[in-house]
Amino acid sequence: MEKIKAAIIGSTGYAGEELTKILFNHKSVEVKYLTSKTYLDQKYSDIYQNFNSITDIICTDDNLDKISKETDVIFLALPHGIASKKVTKEVLYNSKVIDLGADFRLKDKEIYEKWYNVEHFSPELLNEAVYGLPEIYREKIKTARLIANPGCYTTCSILSIYPLVKNNLIDTNSIIIDAKSGVTGAGRGVNLGVHYCETNENIKAYKISSHRHTPEIEQELSFALNKKITLQFTPHLIPMNRGILATSYAKLNNGVTKKDIFDCYIEQYKNEKFVRILKENIYPETKWTKGTNFIDIGIFTDSRTNNVIISASIDNLVKGAAGQAVQNMNLLFNLDETEGLMTAGVFPA
Amino acid sequence: MEKIKAAIIGSTGYAGEELTKILFNHKSVEVKYLTSKTYLDQKYSDIYQNFNSITDIICTDDNLDKISKETDVIFLALPHGIASKKVTKEVLYNSKVIDLGADFRLKDKEIYEKWYNVEHFSPELLNEAVYGLPEIYREKIKTARLIANPGCYTTCSILSIYPLVKNNLIDTNSIIIDAKSGVTGAGRGVNLGVHYCETNENIKAYKISSHRHTPEIEQELSFALNKKITLQFTPHLIPMNRGILATSYAKLNNGVTKKDIFDCYIEQYKNEKFVRILKENIYPETKWTKGTNFIDIGIFTDSRTNNVIISASIDNLVKGAAGQAVQNMNLLFNLDETEGLMTAGVFPA
Amino acid sequence: MEKIKAAIIGSTGYAGEELTKILFNHKSVEVKYLTSKTYLDQKYSDIYQNFNSITDIICTDDNLDKISKETDVIFLALPHGIASKKVTKEVLYNSKVIDLGADFRLKDKEIYEKWYNVEHFSPELLNEAVYGLPEIYREKIKTARLIANPGCYTTCSILSIYPLVKNNLIDTNSIIIDAKSGVTGAGRGVNLGVHYCETNENIKAYKISSHRHTPEIEQELSFALNKKITLQFTPHLIPMNRGILATSYAKLNNGVTKKDIFDCYIEQYKNEKFVRILKENIYPETKWTKGTNFIDIGIFTDSRTNNVIISASIDNLVKGAAGQAVQNMNLLFNLDETEGLMTAGVFPA
Amino acid sequence: MEKIKAAIIGSTGYAGEELTKILFNHKSVEVKYLTSKTYLDQKYSDIYQNFNSITDIICTDDNLDKISKETDVIFLALPHGIASKKVTKEVLYNSKVIDLGADFRLKDKEIYEKWYNVEHFSPELLNEAVYGLPEIYREKIKTARLIANPGCYTTCSILSIYPLVKNNLIDTNSIIIDAKSGVTGAGRGVNLGVHYCETNENIKAYKISSHRHTPEIEQELSFALNKKITLQFTPHLIPMNRGILATSYAKLNNGVTKKDIFDCYIEQYKNEKFVRILKENIYPETKWTKGTNFIDIGIFTDSRTNNVIISASIDNLVKGAAGQAVQNMNLLFNLDETEGLMTAGVFPA
Repeated sequence: MEKIKAAIIGSTGYAGEELTKILFNHKSVEVKYLTSKTYLDQKYSDIYQNFNSITDIICTDDNLDKISKETDVIFLALPHGIASKKVTKEVLYNSKVIDLGADFRLKDKEIYEKWYNVEHFSPELLNEAVYGLPEIYREKIKTARLIANPGCYTTCSILSIYPLVKNNLIDTNSIIIDAKSGVTGAGRGVNLGVHYCETNENIKAYKISSHRHTPEIEQELSFALNKKITLQFTPHLIPMNRGILATSYAKLNNGVTKKDIFDCYIEQYKNEKFVRILKENIYPETKWTKGTNFIDIGIFTDSRTNNVIISASIDNLVKGAAGQAVQNMNLLFNLDETEGLMTAGVFPA
Repeated sequence: MEKIKAAIIGSTGYAGEELTKILFNHKSVEVKYLTSKTYLDQKYSDIYQNFNSITDIICTDDNLDKISKETDVIFLALPHGIASKKVTKEVLYNSKVIDLGADFRLKDKEIYEKWYNVEHFSPELLNEAVYGLPEIYREKIKTARLIANPGCYTTCSILSIYPLVKNNLIDTNSIIIDAKSGVTGAGRGVNLGVHYCETNENIKAYKISSHRHTPEIEQELSFALNKKITLQFTPHLIPMNRGILATSYAKLNNGVTKKDIFDCYIEQYKNEKFVRILKENIYPETKWTKGTNFIDIGIFTDSRTNNVIISASIDNLVKGAAGQAVQNMNLLFNLDETEGLMTAGVFPA
Repeated sequence: MEKIKAAIIGSTGYAGEELTKILFNHKSVEVKYLTSKTYLDQKYSDIYQNFNSITDIICTDDNLDKISKETDVIFLALPHGIASKKVTKEVLYNSKVIDLGADFRLKDKEIYEKWYNVEHFSPELLNEAVYGLPEIYREKIKTARLIANPGCYTTCSILSIYPLVKNNLIDTNSIIIDAKSGVTGAGRGVNLGVHYCETNENIKAYKISSHRHTPEIEQELSFALNKKITLQFTPHLIPMNRGILATSYAKLNNGVTKKDIFDCYIEQYKNEKFVRILKENIYPETKWTKGTNFIDIGIFTDSRTNNVIISASIDNLVKGAAGQAVQNMNLLFNLDETEGLMTAGVFPA
Repeated sequence: MEKIKAAIIGSTGYAGEELTKILFNHKSVEVKYLTSKTYLDQKYSDIYQNFNSITDIICTDDNLDKISKETDVIFLALPHGIASKKVTKEVLYNSKVIDLGADFRLKDKEIYEKWYNVEHFSPELLNEAVYGLPEIYREKIKTARLIANPGCYTTCSILSIYPLVKNNLIDTNSIIIDAKSGVTGAGRGVNLGVHYCETNENIKAYKISSHRHTPEIEQELSFALNKKITLQFTPHLIPMNRGILATSYAKLNNGVTKKDIFDCYIEQYKNEKFVRILKENIYPETKWTKGTNFIDIGIFTDSRTNNVIISASIDNLVKGAAGQAVQNMNLLFNLDETEGLMTAGVFPA
């Protein structure tokens, strides 16, 4: 079988690098283009020296007209506001596009423009774009031209509470998601906020009530219940490289038991290869999902407060970005959904 | 003035060591005894080599009858269940006692025995013991014989939401406290859970709905409102040595504004030397309270969800243990409450 | 082709776990047995939860007589002193053995017994055992029955200075190896020395002039020069999970130039897939070899002191243990030497 | 007694901040000026929030003519090349100056200009400046006007091997110093090299044979022996905030015994309050000197190689910068040399 020809646009950020690594290990893919504005014309392995002896590929610029004609799939790993300019009808005519950024995730242009504070340049594609969460949209993904790969916090949050919402087990006015992320989530750009000595041995919350992943989580949960949901989402920065842990809270509806909840999660995810429902009293830890495409979900209830508490972990760069993008690619090209992704990760690391 | 003679019982745990350090820097205190079961008869500075050239004191055993006759104040830093045996009427007759452990914090013997799963051996002292949170019980502390120094999570949690509860600004059925602690909180005992490679680069929640600091927080908030409060408390283990960050959530009562909330915190804590209410949009970070007796409190509201969100940080070994114990000692002996405690800490560390 | 049947004896230590992970990803291997004394009869994925959904295999005991009859290769990942009892003629008759421990590395029984302070129970195998450093003993490895997989510090140290010694470019009396290791090198056993709070934010040297990898390095360098070499080896413990960096020093012989040195390294390693000689002025960093089987070697000279300085990095669990063991297995079974090992690792992690 | 009026020029770097903290705790000092180019006119406690409730001082500009007239001592914590312009005869006429930078450390203008690659603007002061290492220059420091506070690596390195050199116990051609530093040593400026994810879980050597502290170490050891010494100095970057560990090597001269070495260190440092010679077989660890002005020195010999190995630790921001500066100030103003500095530091932190 001929290999899928792939390009990664914005390959030198952390998500781009993770994607590059997964694709180089993927037996059905040939990486044709790695593009980079910052490192144009430089050897990729001079920037990420872990690729030394793996590839001699040179970073090129991101001419999507040309690249789309020579590839089967284009991954975009760009700051928000750029993809909505770059993805044109012509590009989509030539090649599948999987966008790891935010530009095509929100169906409502106004919500996008309000939370991201930029203009959207291709609102006509919002409807066509398929939200790339295979556990919800698997069938639509298979036939899409443009996939909006979910955010990292978003993936962890939605999969954490989707069964509760969809099955109407909770008071949706009471949802609180308290999420914690490693520093790769902040990207590779330099500023005092990611200086080693300012981040190490420190925790803080940030963007309380204003983080851009909030409307994305709300959109998908609202679709699940077919009713507008507003929720509290709080991100925290944690002194580690990788991983997200989200601990979510909601009031249970009357009469809902712990068994009901376990049953509903098991039913929802019974065929999902990358969702692991943990046994009772087992806590998710980010170390166990590190370097993998799994989400680990722990289910807890408190009879004193009548709350359900879901704690879930992912690797923000894998299931939260590059791994999920490859999972979507596998679906697009009718490959085994787990191809290139079924690994025990790396521990301790 | 003659110095206060002090003993630290259980001086070789992390809280004991922090206390030792603060007392050696305290101009009104003479450390007479450092006791240790594990390191009996060894030089303290051979165990904690940072004390090399500071003191040659030897660890002794914890004969409280003898020690209480030779000291003015005894600090207990022991596992729960031991202090309730050791603190007798005779000991209290001879010396003031500040217990950093849990044995005298809960007023209700049954709640203690249920959550701690041990018998309480001196229930007759529960009523006499004063809960050592100076921001609430300052006057009672000054004349106490036995002080129950609050827990680390507890201190951070209570001070975080006390003004909201006392002023009846929130729906107390909706309180959620999502707390994160550095690893010193787990103590110096060895087990796989604190192995460097199992803890580093990892986050997890633990003891969801069952952590022993829960009834302590509930007790004090219930006293504040004069009504029984039940709440959700979730601790997380974070890969850093020191510090607690607690992010707390509650639904606002009708009509309560952000200004109301700020005003109420400022009023509540206006005379408190160790409470710092942060300006709007400033987030607490554990690095800024590290090595200090301060609590930093950030106040946030979300008009979309009608939640108030309080994020607060302390140093678990200082305001969460040893520093607060010294603050209580200062009150007991009529010293300036901040003596030995007013430092900018250590950053970056 | 039929798969190679493999057993890992001592699979629940860190090296055993890394080996398990590599073998589960190796297309020519079937893992038949994972043994564990500590976790006997438990699911492997309950101990290392990253294997959840990857395998349901149960830890068994280490009956080598039985296991050797049902497998093609047995990996031993045991504390020193045990393998020399377990590996018998019968076992070797049935199966190939790759020992990740120290028992068969030193050719001289007396040196072994002196440095390891235990009796050696099968000295008759010392001569047969092949030292499993493919870059030196590739041809012998291919036909061996018993392979002594090198130590982690040893691998990094020998490959660092082997070309200098073999080509007689340095004064061998002047060799100093200053090595730094992450904490996985200390194993998974619990003690105060690996408690998170005692290891984090700390560095120390340890076992100066007495570390057991010293005679192993000396043995191989002495073989290279055919002259007894004694050298200084100092290990340090570094607050990170994985990786070794060794910085080695020696006085250059008269007239040796920087070009001579680069030429000699390039010549020595020109066909080596896992040795990367870095360009001038590029420094090895452990992050670039993390999760890989590569060694990165940086070459430096100082005309002021006439020293050559070699700085080299490996992943202690991969090229320093499990990866090298698989490299040896590939050679033993006539597979591509890089099978299952040619990855860009995981960064940032 | 009237307090010493102090100014810190460049108070918002890490060394400046540490100095600020020590001076605010120093009972004989009043901090009059904190200057900052980057944070001009901002509240110091808005930049370093650990100073919130400690001081409301505002950062001013660094007009030394004015400041020197209003202060008794000026501390400079500036990038190299600036102090040599700012320190004038007039400034020195008005106030004592303690320069934490490199400009006045090297006695030879040409060596300075070669290694630092900038012009020196006040070479006439080089002779007057006293090298601020109290363990060597105590008496000269007491009467100096201008003190060149030593570098961090330098302090640790010189004190490590000074007794060996001065007493002619080693072959000075064989000296190798392999040093490891936490990331605060790299300063607070932002660049990819100090990005959390690039520094965390990583080690590297850097500036092999070219680090600027090399000539400073050589200068002082040459003075000790009255003979030019050239040595090998290699720094490494370690994933932790604070601390330096230097492991130094040299060949022993004929007949020198371990006892000779211990005796010579004990004799050299017997009256030094901040030098702790560790007992045999005890290894220095940076955690024990963290937040303190101590240097811990461990002495080791190897009879196989005839090397002496000295491993020593300091806190780079305290004994390696701000603490030593205050030690010098104490000498200058005839205070107890340990005033404000005799603390057990902070552990675990």
